[in-house]
Amino acid sequence: MPKLWGGRFTKETSEWVDAYNASISYDKRLYREDIRGSIAHATMLVRQGIITKEDGKKIVAGLKEILQKIEDGKFEFSQKLEDIHMNIEARLTEMIGAAGGRLHSARSRNDQVALDMHMYMKRVVAELGELLIFLEEEILDLAAKNCDTIMPGYTHLQRAQPITFAHNMLAYFNMFKRDFERLQGVWQRADIMPLGACAIAGSTLPIDRQFVAKELNFSDIYSNSMDAISDRDYILEFLSFASILMMHVSRMAEEICLWNSTEFGFIELDDAYATGSSMMPQKKNPDIAELARGKTGRVYGALMQMLTVLKGLPLAYNKDLQEDKEGFFDVVDTLQLTLTVLKNMLATMTLKKDRMKEAVCHDFSNATDLAEYLVKKGVPFRKAHEIVGKTVAYAIEQGKYLGELTLDEFRNYAAEVEKDVYEVLKPENCVASRISFGSPKVEFNRSQCDTNKQLIVKQKEFLSFWQNNM
Amino acid sequence: MPKLWGGRFTKETSEWVDAYNASISYDKRLYREDIRGSIAHATMLVRQGIITKEDGKKIVAGLKEILQKIEDGKFEFSQKLEDIHMNIEARLTEMIGAAGGRLHSARSRNDQVALDMHMYMKRVVAELGELLIFLEEEILDLAAKNCDTIMPGYTHLQRAQPITFAHNMLAYFNMFKRDFERLQGVWQRADIMPLGACAIAGSTLPIDRQFVAKELNFSDIYSNSMDAISDRDYILEFLSFASILMMHVSRMAEEICLWNSTEFGFIELDDAYATGSSMMPQKKNPDIAELARGKTGRVYGALMQMLTVLKGLPLAYNKDLQEDKEGFFDVVDTLQLTLTVLKNMLATMTLKKDRMKEAVCHDFSNATDLAEYLVKKGVPFRKAHEIVGKTVAYAIEQGKYLGELTLDEFRNYAAEVEKDVYEVLKPENCVASRISFGSPKVEFNRSQCDTNKQLIVKQKEFLSFWQNNM
Amino acid sequence: MPKLWGGRFTKETSEWVDAYNASISYDKRLYREDIRGSIAHATMLVRQGIITKEDGKKIVAGLKEILQKIEDGKFEFSQKLEDIHMNIEARLTEMIGAAGGRLHSARSRNDQVALDMHMYMKRVVAELGELLIFLEEEILDLAAKNCDTIMPGYTHLQRAQPITFAHNMLAYFNMFKRDFERLQGVWQRADIMPLGACAIAGSTLPIDRQFVAKELNFSDIYSNSMDAISDRDYILEFLSFASILMMHVSRMAEEICLWNSTEFGFIELDDAYATGSSMMPQKKNPDIAELARGKTGRVYGALMQMLTVLKGLPLAYNKDLQEDKEGFFDVVDTLQLTLTVLKNMLATMTLKKDRMKEAVCHDFSNATDLAEYLVKKGVPFRKAHEIVGKTVAYAIEQGKYLGELTLDEFRNYAAEVEKDVYEVLKPENCVASRISFGSPKVEFNRSQCDTNKQLIVKQKEFLSFWQNNM
Amino acid sequence: MPKLWGGRFTKETSEWVDAYNASISYDKRLYREDIRGSIAHATMLVRQGIITKEDGKKIVAGLKEILQKIEDGKFEFSQKLEDIHMNIEARLTEMIGAAGGRLHSARSRNDQVALDMHMYMKRVVAELGELLIFLEEEILDLAAKNCDTIMPGYTHLQRAQPITFAHNMLAYFNMFKRDFERLQGVWQRADIMPLGACAIAGSTLPIDRQFVAKELNFSDIYSNSMDAISDRDYILEFLSFASILMMHVSRMAEEICLWNSTEFGFIELDDAYATGSSMMPQKKNPDIAELARGKTGRVYGALMQMLTVLKGLPLAYNKDLQEDKEGFFDVVDTLQLTLTVLKNMLATMTLKKDRMKEAVCHDFSNATDLAEYLVKKGVPFRKAHEIVGKTVAYAIEQGKYLGELTLDEFRNYAAEVEKDVYEVLKPENCVASRISFGSPKVEFNRSQCDTNKQLIVKQKEFLSFWQNNM
Repeated sequence: MPKLWGGRFTKETSEWVDAYNASISYDKRLYREDIRGSIAHATMLVRQGIITKEDGKKIVAGLKEILQKIEDGKFEFSQKLEDIHMNIEARLTEMIGAAGGRLHSARSRNDQVALDMHMYMKRVVAELGELLIFLEEEILDLAAKNCDTIMPGYTHLQRAQPITFAHNMLAYFNMFKRDFERLQGVWQRADIMPLGACAIAGSTLPIDRQFVAKELNFSDIYSNSMDAISDRDYILEFLSFASILMMHVSRMAEEICLWNSTEFGFIELDDAYATGSSMMPQKKNPDIAELARGKTGRVYGALMQMLTVLKGLPLAYNKDLQEDKEGFFDVVDTLQLTLTVLKNMLATMTLKKDRMKEAVCHDFSNATDLAEYLVKKGVPFRKAHEIVGKTVAYAIEQGKYLGELTLDEFRNYAAEVEKDVYEVLKPENCVASRISFGSPKVEFNRSQCDTNKQLIVKQKEFLSFWQNNM
Repeated sequence: MPKLWGGRFTKETSEWVDAYNASISYDKRLYREDIRGSIAHATMLVRQGIITKEDGKKIVAGLKEILQKIEDGKFEFSQKLEDIHMNIEARLTEMIGAAGGRLHSARSRNDQVALDMHMYMKRVVAELGELLIFLEEEILDLAAKNCDTIMPGYTHLQRAQPITFAHNMLAYFNMFKRDFERLQGVWQRADIMPLGACAIAGSTLPIDRQFVAKELNFSDIYSNSMDAISDRDYILEFLSFASILMMHVSRMAEEICLWNSTEFGFIELDDAYATGSSMMPQKKNPDIAELARGKTGRVYGALMQMLTVLKGLPLAYNKDLQEDKEGFFDVVDTLQLTLTVLKNMLATMTLKKDRMKEAVCHDFSNATDLAEYLVKKGVPFRKAHEIVGKTVAYAIEQGKYLGELTLDEFRNYAAEVEKDVYEVLKPENCVASRISFGSPKVEFNRSQCDTNKQLIVKQKEFLSFWQNNM
Repeated sequence: MPKLWGGRFTKETSEWVDAYNASISYDKRLYREDIRGSIAHATMLVRQGIITKEDGKKIVAGLKEILQKIEDGKFEFSQKLEDIHMNIEARLTEMIGAAGGRLHSARSRNDQVALDMHMYMKRVVAELGELLIFLEEEILDLAAKNCDTIMPGYTHLQRAQPITFAHNMLAYFNMFKRDFERLQGVWQRADIMPLGACAIAGSTLPIDRQFVAKELNFSDIYSNSMDAISDRDYILEFLSFASILMMHVSRMAEEICLWNSTEFGFIELDDAYATGSSMMPQKKNPDIAELARGKTGRVYGALMQMLTVLKGLPLAYNKDLQEDKEGFFDVVDTLQLTLTVLKNMLATMTLKKDRMKEAVCHDFSNATDLAEYLVKKGVPFRKAHEIVGKTVAYAIEQGKYLGELTLDEFRNYAAEVEKDVYEVLKPENCVASRISFGSPKVEFNRSQCDTNKQLIVKQKEFLSFWQNNM
Repeated sequence: MPKLWGGRFTKETSEWVDAYNASISYDKRLYREDIRGSIAHATMLVRQGIITKEDGKKIVAGLKEILQKIEDGKFEFSQKLEDIHMNIEARLTEMIGAAGGRLHSARSRNDQVALDMHMYMKRVVAELGELLIFLEEEILDLAAKNCDTIMPGYTHLQRAQPITFAHNMLAYFNMFKRDFERLQGVWQRADIMPLGACAIAGSTLPIDRQFVAKELNFSDIYSNSMDAISDRDYILEFLSFASILMMHVSRMAEEICLWNSTEFGFIELDDAYATGSSMMPQKKNPDIAELARGKTGRVYGALMQMLTVLKGLPLAYNKDLQEDKEGFFDVVDTLQLTLTVLKNMLATMTLKKDRMKEAVCHDFSNATDLAEYLVKKGVPFRKAHEIVGKTVAYAIEQGKYLGELTLDEFRNYAAEVEKDVYEVLKPENCVASRISFGSPKVEFNRSQCDTNKQLIVKQKEFLSFWQNNM
């Protein structure tokens, strides 16, 4: 089968070259975008008198038939025809003859593939936006139910101060909220139409780019044809968004693994969201969390891949740019599955609240409360810090926790201590007395849940806009 | 010298640990932010009655004195005191006694360093925003002067179609325009105040976070204390922005190197912006462009570093987070110098317009015009493409360019060709007849220059806002 | 279908988990290694009396049948059964009953998959080693044929000094030679047998690891069971090797793109190893070189992926390690195709020797020869460098090359210049008089070709050893 | 001050260019190598009659004086003079006049900096090799003392099977052992002398590269001048080695953090190797381990940086290559400090053996022993696995561990269970009965300690060779 671009060539390309060059095995995923774009292009060509109405009709009908065939799994893709664009155009011409040969007027694969990718990206934004909202809702639900579930808060993986499970969950909510904001940036940079840039310098034919943009729901058009065909910023920006998102996921996954260990024992995963060992019969492993954490690597890798590809490329299109797809598609699939599985795992896990509470009762995470207690009694903070440090050292030596020291023992270090100290040191009071905005105090968490529910309403408006304009 | 946190410890830290742990060698760059933040914090502590007015006055006066000393190069930093926060607090207490020990009330280094970094980032955004605008203005100036400077446009580093130098420059303008948009996202995510999150769970003291935020020009406050101290998204987002920006720079640098070669010969660098060889006396090397291209690596590397640091970290603060600074600071310095040097190099280079024009006259980059000429005569594009391909192959065989073929020779391939074809094939006409929006046609480039000047006016409004709110 | 490890579970795993967890879609590529490993394991179990001879026979026969089925494309893989190991074991038990249930004695998937990957890696080393030698041979052939093909040598993409095409090729030969050395390191670290480490701590059954190692041609055994199942160094080392190799390829590809441009015009690619444009009929693009350069990104990305996956993982096996496969397999495929296509492209391209020679005659790349000429006349090098620098500046002003200056003109800058200078300045003499070892002088290149042919003989001995011990 | 290469230039370089271009701020660290290399070069120039004996003497004496000045901190480096090479040569010429101008005969900065970096790398290999051995020795010492310290072994962070602390340590020993092997590869690729390659194509002067190589203890010489000046493989290979090493460190650091948590409680860090909190008085944080884990990021980043720099660079030298230093130097410093601090932290930490032992007594990590017990009684492993899985599920329901079940309870699941099962289930017996090579059985660990001590003897021979040949 001769190549559609083969006019000046005297030999067929080597089979090795076909194998190396062809992208059809992965870019066929763009078939919907490719056909929709071609229909809009053909419609414009007719309107502008570049092709006849009859040819336009044949083209549109042919393309719709091909779409149906692909969706029915009846379209045979050919590696020899390199990519989704040539596969569809060649088949169209087979079906409708000369008219097919007119579709590519005032178009190059350079702007065609850019168009397909922009459209595909807009769909991805809409789909991932929805999954992100689902995950946020699950987290918010867990938070709302656990505003008074006390657990240890950690810094340096050392018990720091008592917090609530809601507070921990809301920290993650805020991360995903920022991810959603970044997703809006991706949409903004993807929502620009490249078609009409042609190979590099536009066309001498009287095309109407605005019309095509409107047909395809684009809100803007590339104003420079060289930029239009060589811009991959929106893919890089998506991969950056994805990397940060997966970083958040990896942090949550790490905590799930810790909480699920025998040593922490704060949660139990549902049997449907855990797996066993081929050798050790007792094992119930948090594979989902581990995989989510591990898959962070492939997303980072895809970002590094794309940055490497683009480094030092002269303008405008270079074949290196074809390498923008596989890593990107893999990231899309990874995010879709990860967000879904993570949400389901959270929804089905059991909190062992007794273990959490018990943990807080047997540690020194109330030490800061003692220091601030002394500050309120007039001791400079830095002095109070030193006093409590020494008190803790003494308590450890005695094998006691702070609440178990006698008043005399306290007063050996600070004369200011009164009987009311024992109330201050109770974990539930540690939480309750955190009166600064943003702290784990139950009321703050409750109100944050409400605020964040309002935020989700706003996010859904964006989502709805995306779904209607992709 | 005992550590300020050493209450419960029985030994001094090892010197090795001090060397490994200390960040003062690089975080001293945050001294302005640290002092400004401490002043705002102290002012609030007084307002809220947590410390006395007198103590507040002493603290503020002491901090101002320290600021002056640092700016005068008279402050001695100590590695033993670990970081900029402890260096300043320890010195303050030396100067003003017990009052100094009250400054750290309701504060931890965890939220203090986060505050400093957010403030520093806002300054960086304002500074880089300005440099980016300077570069854009230079590019726009070059474009405005060269709307009719014809040169070859390349795809696959093969001559594709004639373009103008302005068109090439405007492609870069659009890249940097998007970088500016992304910088706005960085500001948005940096402009949130973490102070008051304290170590992890806020404070039992009656602090007023809104007041501090207002004092320091923050438009928002972290609503979750754990998120506040462990969020490094804004740094990652900055590094992503920086990586994409440097990718753009590397592409431009690559073109400068090509254009500056003997083979292309499209530009000559100013002697002040080129360098020689220690051995080869004739050399005049585009070192600036090469270094700019090479420095892309360190920016990508810093992004990879930070992504790696954060992967899999449980909440909330972990010491790993201290590794957020050196790579970031290096990127800031790299961008500042690169944007400035690049702008200056562009401003001083000489275009060899004759060589550019001559190049276009001796190639086949008008072949697409011939194909579209045939399309206008009714030949289906795909057929026209094939005809022109064969015509080109024939011309190469004959050692002629397209414009040198006789009418008969053309007609051997396409009977539709008329005498008017010769006008169509002239490079200046190739450019002039690109009538689609976004193409290199002189008028489009002119109007794009105007549009982009308007855009810069808008960018400057952002810049001005940043400068007033950092 | 219940999981083989499902004893303690009360629910089936969710379908989402199956989709997320399953590796069968890509690890089925390990079927040969898995079956060969299982046969060796079963043979050992019989020898050690852990299972009966009859059971052993059934197992081996069953496994061989499964191997045949897979090779014939008649084996149906199930996602529910997660991976290649469980797919094969489950089928075996279906076929042969209880005996199948004895195969996994003293074995875990943890050491089983490690075994499969080590065996697969050894095969990969042997296969890539061969392709690397093929490429080296092609390069050496090109070098041997072009020991006297003079061309410009570049630094900073500026003409530096005349070299030969052979010299350029031999530079690449040396890079690939080092890649081969690094491949030996990969073999060394892969050639260690993990089986018998079981899940983490070996077995209480009397297994014989030495026997299995011998059966499978391993020269060493992991001496620590925890290391055996969590070591992925050999994969990282392979990905490092691959990244450096692809970096070399990207440099060569860049030169191919440059040489193939109209501006350089040093080579012409064969029509079978170049491609056209869908829009521009005249284009003949070096897609292969561009793709090879671009694919560097995916290999770097895979390295970053794996480094990220392993960062901070506690011992021993964690599910994250399953992410060691897809990136690695993709790199293997990428290298195999790239090495082959690159070799073929080199073998079929045409050198335009006249253009290369002509280039050298019209530049200042003989300036260093003039400087060293003066050194031989007693001028200190640094002084000579300055003199020649000024002479070059003068010549450029006059529109002349060095060989076109009159003796008087030379002597305005250096009285030491004699008539013999004109011979010194001829490009062929520039090359011929490079008498230091390792320079482009024709004789050196010839002898390097011979030396390197001897080296390939040695490499083939390694290759042969690998092929016999994989 | 005019540049030493400024002959053909009519303007001084811009100050911005100087700032961007100069490397003296970091490459001054190469002063020893640069001077030693220059002395060897000058000695050779004399031997070959290229410069006179008197000039040679002046040069050598001058260089030695400069060396002394630098070591005494009395040498003033100038940014204007760009790099260490020009700083030293300019100063030399100031000191000794014209003779200084002869030193750079038959040399370029291209091969000079390559020489310096190869020599520096060899020193780094020797220094890091020693630190690596120190760390290995510490680990081996810990292992030797804890061959019978039983603790839980983990997979998926779930208790898997009992192991010993020695076994865990020996797993790390094996990782560092492989790192040492890779370091040998780095030495091998660094131990090749580039000097004499000059700018790109060697020299017309009768230099003797073998003599210089011998003077500087190189065992081989680059046989291709273009490769000599553009090869950075040895740096990439070092960064790959460093990345894998830091990955190992990060895994160990993660375990230290876990073990040091309240929940695990397996170790206590020495007060001198832990740090406190500025706010929370009770905190004792494993900062060293966290930083070591975090610094993995900067090493990965440096690798990514260098891979990016080299991607797609045409031959031979390009200024981008100057970016090979800062990241590399930072990695060297990071490794030196990390290896030392880590060793010291391990040496001073306290094992809480009771907690480790207790942990093993209260879990199901003996389940595999029960399964293998059944296999020995004739039950197929897969069946045994299922039986034990159900037994575990039952025990959890009953709130018992396996050793607490009655014989009847066991027999409800497997009739084969006898009274001897209770001995089998004791943790110390679980370890003792691991009879496969490489398992945690005490005797195996003891013998591994001996074997590894022998290995260190061999490593020290390499080290000694390196120290004598750097």
